[in-house]
Parts: sequence; structure tokens; C-alpha cells
Amino acid sequence: MANTNPNAPRLILACRRQPVDRTPVWMMRQAGRYLQEYRTVRSRVSFLDLCRTPDLAVEVSLQPYRLLGVDAVIMFSDILIPVMAMGVPIDFTEEGPRVSDPIRTETQVAALDVPDPDIETPFVLDIIRKLRRELNGAVPVIGFAGAPWTLATYIVANGKSAGVASAKSMMLHSPDLLHRLLEKLTLSVTGYLNGQIDAGAQVIQLFDTWAGELSPSDYEEFALRYERHVIEGLKRKGIPVILYVNGCAGILERMASSGADVLSIDWRLDLSDARRRVGNRVALQGNLDPQVLLGPRERVFQLARQTVRDGGGAGHILNLGHGILPNTPVENARAFVEATQGLST
Amino acid sequence: MANTNPNAPRLILACRRQPVDRTPVWMMRQAGRYLQEYRTVRSRVSFLDLCRTPDLAVEVSLQPYRLLGVDAVIMFSDILIPVMAMGVPIDFTEEGPRVSDPIRTETQVAALDVPDPDIETPFVLDIIRKLRRELNGAVPVIGFAGAPWTLATYIVANGKSAGVASAKSMMLHSPDLLHRLLEKLTLSVTGYLNGQIDAGAQVIQLFDTWAGELSPSDYEEFALRYERHVIEGLKRKGIPVILYVNGCAGILERMASSGADVLSIDWRLDLSDARRRVGNRVALQGNLDPQVLLGPRERVFQLARQTVRDGGGAGHILNLGHGILPNTPVENARAFVEATQGLST
Repeated sequence: MANTNPNAPRLILACRRQPVDRTPVWMMRQAGRYLQEYRTVRSRVSFLDLCRTPDLAVEVSLQPYRLLGVDAVIMFSDILIPVMAMGVPIDFTEEGPRVSDPIRTETQVAALDVPDPDIETPFVLDIIRKLRRELNGAVPVIGFAGAPWTLATYIVANGKSAGVASAKSMMLHSPDLLHRLLEKLTLSVTGYLNGQIDAGAQVIQLFDTWAGELSPSDYEEFALRYERHVIEGLKRKGIPVILYVNGCAGILERMASSGADVLSIDWRLDLSDARRRVGNRVALQGNLDPQVLLGPRERVFQLARQTVRDGGGAGHILNLGHGILPNTPVENARAFVEATQGLST
Repeated sequence: MANTNPNAPRLILACRRQPVDRTPVWMMRQAGRYLQEYRTVRSRVSFLDLCRTPDLAVEVSLQPYRLLGVDAVIMFSDILIPVMAMGVPIDFTEEGPRVSDPIRTETQVAALDVPDPDIETPFVLDIIRKLRRELNGAVPVIGFAGAPWTLATYIVANGKSAGVASAKSMMLHSPDLLHRLLEKLTLSVTGYLNGQIDAGAQVIQLFDTWAGELSPSDYEEFALRYERHVIEGLKRKGIPVILYVNGCAGILERMASSGADVLSIDWRLDLSDARRRVGNRVALQGNLDPQVLLGPRERVFQLARQTVRDGGGAGHILNLGHGILPNTPVENARAFVEATQGLST
């Protein structure tokens, strides 16, 4: 796991498009159900209690590092944690989050709090502090938040799948109301991420997962604008920001103008096409289809290896194009990670 | 509805990138549940019986032309009709098609028929002949089929939503078997479309709706290759072919090499970006988000108008980026169609 420079781990170097000894690798949702060790912890507590209990969250955050040797540890949490702190009650069910009282009126938006993370979500900051102590510089700790548009898709509807349609409906019928909601989410997310940075997060990933469902002009008005505000509002101190959008092939150049250092891309576009389109303005993260990890182990290794080659070494972080699937065999996750080894950049 | 040249309706001219008096318009799934007149017919028969009864299918095919003044009539049918004729039993339920015995083995693939459309699906050819007679040249009749990859996603699983994942699983674990299935589907689709051409179809649309879920290299190997074989196998006689993929932003240039005359694109990329990328090799069709048609009428008109402007006149057919939604108000469908009027190209 040694890096050439212990003060600048290879993940950070890759974010800055600086030379690395080999391509760094981690996986979105790497602390998750595909690991037996995760399921053991999870069997004892609810999902929400796992998020809220730093010792347990730290334990599951570290599992993929200890078991698979990934190059970064992302704190275990959920993108809806800060939204709950804003005053939106959310039930975490087996089918996903449920919002009993969706945010649809001016009154509801006005009533939302902009939480102080030290007071409302201290357990998140605790997780980061403990991860920093446990890791002691071995690999960087990634903090994260959902971007305003993506958070809005969860809270304007009462169930996950209807979210994008409901948010688009608000966009068409009450665009001003949606903008006010997005502004409030922007303030909360910015404060939440700054709390994480103060607690020791070394990289920030902003998940605008559902922004790829928008037309490019709606992406600019309802997603990109707020991604920019969040990124501009961070007390950066040189901390790299990664921006993820699922289904980003139509908006890649626009994403590159967000202020993010790294674009995390899905598998529906070629990594080499993406590189050609954004040039050296940003680093790239991705982009193997998570479903590949349900295939034969040799195929996983081969395709991950090809992704490393397509990434071209400098300015590339190997990752999946979306979160790892719960039914992924752990040996395939291991093959994915191992594909970065023995290849000089 | 008059065209400048009655022998070459504006839809055909647009497919050929020739000058038109105004941008032609039609909507994917334009014969459908958003029309009260469709629901009235449908309340009397099952979906499958509607597909199989030419007089009723002709009636619903013509409704959007008579009620909204679209520039083309697409035959009412379902992409799974030729698959049933291959010997795959399919139940059309309210939740979508169900395949009781998914195609997953060599034996099952070998047992699939390559149907003769004159014998196995004569009702489809009848619909086209009757539409030609009824329309008498007023607007062209569009025939269609699902492309091999997209048809495969429906028949390797027993329910619609699991289809892409199941087809990808076969791609990883049994790629040769999947290729044999795709080859057989290619033969069937080619014969089916040639039957439609012989019956009088004036334009062909090939729906590879779920090919946008593939990585670009998998798209080339498992979708594009078979789109090409189908298109090459058509007894073209100058009949334009339109290729539709949902989520096509990452593969647009590859689609342009399929042999199709027109690419039908979704809303996740700018029409003007698409034009820049494919140049004048192909015409473009699209690309308003169907969810826009659930918004206020004025907004529908305004955004459709903008799409017509972005299309730049020559070589553009106004359409949605996916099928019209069942809960679309009919006045919004009308506004969409009317947006093409009063704008010279």
C-alpha cells in the first residue's frame, strides 16, 4: 500500500493529474452488502443506527480497505443524513428511503433548517475524525454529500423511483419554488461538507447521481448552477472535489466547468472519448459497469485492466460507473482492485 | 397538411436531409393511452387483440393523425409481436409483458423459428396495407421493429425491468449463446421488416431502446453489429430507416455508422451538439423530454419551438426523446405538434 510520497497518496496525486506509481482504485458503495463482514455488522443494527454510530460506521468504512486494499476510504453514511437534519423525516425501508411528507410548498421550503453539522450531525464528523486516526495517513478519507438536485429528487416525492419525475414536475410547474429549495439545499450541503473538511476529510465527492436525467439546458439551470455554488463555498485548502453524475455522456463538458477537479463518469461513454472531450482540465474517475462484476472473475480482471489502460495513467482513478451491486461476489471486487497492480503508468 | 411535393411528404424529405416547407413532427407511441379515443377502443379488447385486429389497429393508428395532425402514421403494434411468432409465449399484463419461459439455453435458441411474416403475422401487413389505402398518400406510413439487442432484453428474463440486467449477465457468462440468439432475432426482424416494406411501409423505425445501457464497446459488439445486419438486409427501395436508442449520448457517432438515415435521439444531449457530432451524415429526430408534456401548455409549446429551432430545419424531424407518457394531457400533445407551424425552415 506504500505510496512514493506518504504526504501525497496516489489518489490525491491522481486528482491533481500528477504522476502516480500506479492508478489508484476505490469503488462507490464499497462499504456495503456485498461484504459478509458488512452484513454481520448490519444484522445487529438498523441502517440508520449504523450511520449514527461512529464506531460501527468506522468499522464498515474500513472493511474494503482491510479486505480488498482499496486506495481510499469513503466514510460510511447516506446522502439523506443532512436532509434529515434539515427537518425532513425519512424512513429507511428495505425498498429504499421513504419521505412521509414530501416537500412541495413554499411553507415547507421556508421551514427547512440549514443545520450546523457540529450540532445536528456530529456523528458524521466523528466518523471522519476516527477514520483519520485509524488510517494514520495510509490512504485518504473521502467525505461526501448529495448535490442539491439529487437531494431534491428524494424529498419532493415519497418514494425513490418517483423522485426524478416529481422533481421535473416541480421544475415545470413551480420553477421558482424548486430554485428556493435548491438554494436551501445548497447552503446545507456546503455547510455539511465544510464540517467534514474541518473534521479531516481529504477528498470530497459530490454525488449528483440523478442529474443525468435532465436535458443539458435543465442540467445547467437546476443542477450545475448549484454544484458550482457548493464547490465555490468549500473551504478548499487544496482538497480535491470529485463530481459524479450517472448518465453524464451528454453533459461532460458542462460538468468540467463546475469547478470540480475530477469527473466521476458512468460506463455509457468511453473513458478515452471522455478524455478527448475534457482534455486536461480535469481528472477522470471510473467507469466500469458495476454489472460486469457479476460476470466471471477473469472477465472482471480483463475489463478492469482495459479501463486502467484506457485511463492512460495520469489523472485517472479506477472506479465503477455506479455503486457496486449488493450481489457482487467479493472475489470479483478483489479482481477489480487487483487490476490496477503490476501496470506502470 | 399539404406538402410542396405530394410524391415526397415532408417527413421523407427530412429523412433525406432535403428542404422542407416546415419541420415534420410525429410522436413515439402517438397511438396510445393519452387519447380518450384510444382508451375507448382499448376498453373493448385486450392489448393483444388490438394488435391482431387490423380494423381496430388501423383506427387507433389514425387517431393522432386525425386529432392532432401529425406528419406520419406509425402502425399500431408491439415490438414483441414478431417474437411471439418466433415461438416465445408472452403475456401482456397491465405491468408490461411477461415471458413465462425465458430464453436461456442453446436448445431454446435453436428451437426458435424464423417466421414468415405473410404466414405468422399477416395482420401486421394488413394494418399497413389498410393504412396506405386510408391515407392515400396524405402522410407516410411508418413500419417498425425492435432491434435484436432490445428484443433480447425482453425474452431472456421474465419481466421487463430485469431484462437489461439479465441480457448483460448472458453477455458476460455466455456471450456465444447471446450472439446466436441475436443472430436469430436479426433474421426474424429483417424478414419482418421486409414484409412490412412489401406491404407498403414508407419509412422504417428500428427501436434499439435499451442499447443505451451498454458500454460503447458492448454496444458495438452486441447491438450495433445487428442493427447493421438488419439495415443491410432490408429491400430498401429508397425507404428511409430511423434508428432510436434511449440514452444515446455516448454512442452517437457509432450509431451514425449503422446505415440508418436518421438517428432518433433522447433529451439527455443537445440537438445542436448532436448535429455538430454527426455532421450531415444523417438526419436527426427528437428530442424533447416526454415529461415536459406533463407541464403547462405554454411551456410545452415554447420548448418544442426551441427544439425546432435547434434542429435547424433541414434534416430534422420533431419528436419526443422517448414515447409519449400515458398521463399526457391531449392539449399538450397538440401544442407539441403545433410548435412546428408558422416557422419557415
